[in-house]
Amino acid sequence: MKSTHYIAEPNILRIVPLGGLGEFGKNMMVYELADTILIVDAGVMFPEEDMPGVDLVIPDISYLLQNAHKVKAILLTHGHEDHIGALPYVLRQINAPVYGARLTLGLVENKLREHDLHHKSTLHTITADSVLHIGPFVLEFVHLCHSIPDAMAVALRTPVGVILHATDFKFDHSPVDGRLTDEEKLRRLGDEGVRLLLSDSTNSEISGFTPSEQELERVLDRLIGQAPGRVILATFASNISRVQQVIDVARLHGRRVGVTGRSMITNTRMAAELGYLTPPPEGLMTPEQMTHLPPEQVVIVCTGSQGEPTSALVRMSQGQYRRLQIGKGDTVIISASPIPGNERMIHRTLDNLFRLGADLFYDELSDVHVSGHGSREDQRRMIELTRPEYLLPIHGEYRQLVLHARLAREIGYDDEHLLVIEDGQVVEVSQEGVLRGEPVTSGRVFVDGLGVGDIGAVVLRDRRHLARDGFLVVIIGLDAATGEVLLEPEILSRGFVYVAEAEPLLEEIKELVWDTLDRYEHAQAISEHLHLALGDFCYRRTRRRPMILPLVFEL
Amino acid sequence: MKSTHYIAEPNILRIVPLGGLGEFGKNMMVYELADTILIVDAGVMFPEEDMPGVDLVIPDISYLLQNAHKVKAILLTHGHEDHIGALPYVLRQINAPVYGARLTLGLVENKLREHDLHHKSTLHTITADSVLHIGPFVLEFVHLCHSIPDAMAVALRTPVGVILHATDFKFDHSPVDGRLTDEEKLRRLGDEGVRLLLSDSTNSEISGFTPSEQELERVLDRLIGQAPGRVILATFASNISRVQQVIDVARLHGRRVGVTGRSMITNTRMAAELGYLTPPPEGLMTPEQMTHLPPEQVVIVCTGSQGEPTSALVRMSQGQYRRLQIGKGDTVIISASPIPGNERMIHRTLDNLFRLGADLFYDELSDVHVSGHGSREDQRRMIELTRPEYLLPIHGEYRQLVLHARLAREIGYDDEHLLVIEDGQVVEVSQEGVLRGEPVTSGRVFVDGLGVGDIGAVVLRDRRHLARDGFLVVIIGLDAATGEVLLEPEILSRGFVYVAEAEPLLEEIKELVWDTLDRYEHAQAISEHLHLALGDFCYRRTRRRPMILPLVFEL
Repeated sequence: MKSTHYIAEPNILRIVPLGGLGEFGKNMMVYELADTILIVDAGVMFPEEDMPGVDLVIPDISYLLQNAHKVKAILLTHGHEDHIGALPYVLRQINAPVYGARLTLGLVENKLREHDLHHKSTLHTITADSVLHIGPFVLEFVHLCHSIPDAMAVALRTPVGVILHATDFKFDHSPVDGRLTDEEKLRRLGDEGVRLLLSDSTNSEISGFTPSEQELERVLDRLIGQAPGRVILATFASNISRVQQVIDVARLHGRRVGVTGRSMITNTRMAAELGYLTPPPEGLMTPEQMTHLPPEQVVIVCTGSQGEPTSALVRMSQGQYRRLQIGKGDTVIISASPIPGNERMIHRTLDNLFRLGADLFYDELSDVHVSGHGSREDQRRMIELTRPEYLLPIHGEYRQLVLHARLAREIGYDDEHLLVIEDGQVVEVSQEGVLRGEPVTSGRVFVDGLGVGDIGAVVLRDRRHLARDGFLVVIIGLDAATGEVLLEPEILSRGFVYVAEAEPLLEEIKELVWDTLDRYEHAQAISEHLHLALGDFCYRRTRRRPMILPLVFEL
Repeated sequence: MKSTHYIAEPNILRIVPLGGLGEFGKNMMVYELADTILIVDAGVMFPEEDMPGVDLVIPDISYLLQNAHKVKAILLTHGHEDHIGALPYVLRQINAPVYGARLTLGLVENKLREHDLHHKSTLHTITADSVLHIGPFVLEFVHLCHSIPDAMAVALRTPVGVILHATDFKFDHSPVDGRLTDEEKLRRLGDEGVRLLLSDSTNSEISGFTPSEQELERVLDRLIGQAPGRVILATFASNISRVQQVIDVARLHGRRVGVTGRSMITNTRMAAELGYLTPPPEGLMTPEQMTHLPPEQVVIVCTGSQGEPTSALVRMSQGQYRRLQIGKGDTVIISASPIPGNERMIHRTLDNLFRLGADLFYDELSDVHVSGHGSREDQRRMIELTRPEYLLPIHGEYRQLVLHARLAREIGYDDEHLLVIEDGQVVEVSQEGVLRGEPVTSGRVFVDGLGVGDIGAVVLRDRRHLARDGFLVVIIGLDAATGEVLLEPEILSRGFVYVAEAEPLLEEIKELVWDTLDRYEHAQAISEHLHLALGDFCYRRTRRRPMILPLVFEL
């Protein structure tokens, strides 16, 4: 194994992206200098349609496991799932100390408790004013505006210069919590000289600045003010600032606020305890406590903005939410934009809510959401404030990284100073310059139930095959000595045809099996021939290709 | 069966929606008066993620089959798949004469040829000036602008008034073929009195008028004019007008035009033969014929705008398209907007094209597409021109129907004159008024390979189950007389765990089977117990629920 280890040169900083570059989610960046490795973020990605049965996707951390003795810290930039969701899986294998802001660690603690890891982990609270010395690194932090409080950039002071890891952010001049992105500190770092900026590429397809949260407040004020009855607002459970806005606006209109949905309840409770959320004087209520209130005094904040099948809003939309029946007079606001891939689930939810008679406001209709990520002008501003020598676009699908680099080219950067790379592609920063190193193992590890990494390409290929065309098992038992048929052909099939109505087809299949038994003698030959012949037959008759599994036993 | 027949009253028009109301695609509307049934459109819907293995979704036409003797005509409003795609399946069961415009029937003929039905069907070409007398109906037609030439509204003159079936349309004052939506004829119908308008709801979430195709021409002119090398443009194969625009613009810039992708080649050839497409003087070329041309003289129009796995553009993006390798210097334009559900496939294609070094222009970045469907102001204009007594929003998911009705309410309609209904909900129009009739059977019929309708809820549930967690088959053979085990437990599993690495788990499963054999005697009891015990065991050990299939044979 020794040979796969990298022998660190003392003055080369290795930057190893293990997630988030080239595909959305599971953000993880590794900084390695001499004998020290720092991990920035450990996020999850939600499975795509071609990963059936998969619950979560986490980064492949083989590289870290090979170098586990070097890992000195895990830094978390903020508390979103795509930055902290893989932490339990990493900690179970590499128990390094975790650093994060108060709210971030509040969310992490809930998560570690669910994985029974909270007693085994070391969490260190930091603020934007903290300075950490970890091995050869000196770390400073910069407050960033994002759709969750306490987001921070990490500035790594190293022998090869200042590396600024800036994600996720926007320049909001009127954020809900009043804390602006610290432009002053960014500019000072720029004055001092930033060697390399890693910057958020999420919205590099969108021109202009991302609107301020303040603009949203005006919209919410109007919608909640005009609503004739109850207002139900769905947003991300981690969007504490959005919940605060709703509380503030509701109060102006003499409405009480209730919360529902498991993660919404957990998060608002924790955020209130830590002082990140100021609940109304009467507290946040439950839907049950609000049943006696007149509808025009009710606002309920809930989960389900992505159409997640078991979320509060989706159950409401299906009339399956005991505590709250939506009907005529209710106003539903979806304050979130669809994560690509969720559109159909969201549309179904909207359709069902309309069927119940509710009045709806959502992304396609009204400005009921603003992104937490900066658009092209925010990205430009980050570059102009920090004036880095090199730019490495992070946090984006490949086209977003390319478009971020294209923006920098407009500003005057040449291709040599723009590092568009993907997960696994190592970058080495030395005094002399920046080079691409040997790629390391990276990729997706699937979490399915209790299994982490046991489901791979083979099982997924089988699942997709079974999903498309089902299977056909043929069982035959032969006398080992005489070849006589002891167990007559039995057919077992699911997902291929509707068995109850496919008798004639199954009879033909049996005949084909008998033909084969007449023509071949040995189990192996019978099995091989059946595999081909049944595959052919099924395709010819149905244009489907079920998984064919002949089992010939010799008894 | 007689009892399920509807006994027609001579002066009641029944409107029976069999597709397209409440979900996108598979448009089909049935008009029934006394002994005559007219079908307007017979479209397909493309399968959603939860319909694995399904190729197409067509309307359930049980109602038509019960009343087949009444069906006198199938009218096609235009040649898009969501209006004509189900025609072969309908004709195979109800061989009624088909009426449509020339281009529409051109597309239909190709389709019927593929299904070997072209010699058995009767096609009648009509124009916007045709007047048809079919049973008690007198039919007139109105030219509409849409993203395909030859789209028409159908005006049905009936004893209960004029019914205007208007889909798909927009009011484009500078369409590519110069033929405007016939506002004059619509207005005349309005003057005369329209009893009921059925109108396109697709874009009722979008305010304003849909931009003219002319605006797109300016964008294409700029992009193609500035492109340093080849231009590859992907759009829908049916979007003949878009292809014409590209031909016209390419010519201005001294470029030749090639086409590729099976359906693009077929459609452009047919459209050119029928005179709907004016090819450049040198003709439309193949990519092979263009290899000798300098890149700045090349434009290629191809399929793949939705990221369809086997389309030309997707194969190019994967470097698997022999005839054309995309690289640096190439400009790729995706001139289409994503059909909801296709976003991720499109994004992957874009990412891969960027990886090859191409420069890209697509929906999220630039205005390289305009919709063929009118937005809210177009919808308003249709209502204002025709001034119907009743409005029945068609062609939309449920929320779009509701929003269309909401627009009419703004104009001054009351709820009694707005008919927001879904597939299967019959509307009966008489002299006195409009009533809701008894719902009829409607829904989705799945086409999977050669099977039409044989795949239903059970098979799809099995497929989804297999996709999520795979299966586990246990086979045991017992001596029928003594109960002795003749065939020792065999386990067959796919999609559940990676069998090659799950030996210990499979061994435990076998032990559990042996335990069961010790405790139970009869095949039935063994089988039932195994089903429960293995389900429990698998869930406990993996948190997965594979399909458990115990097979206990008595030999």
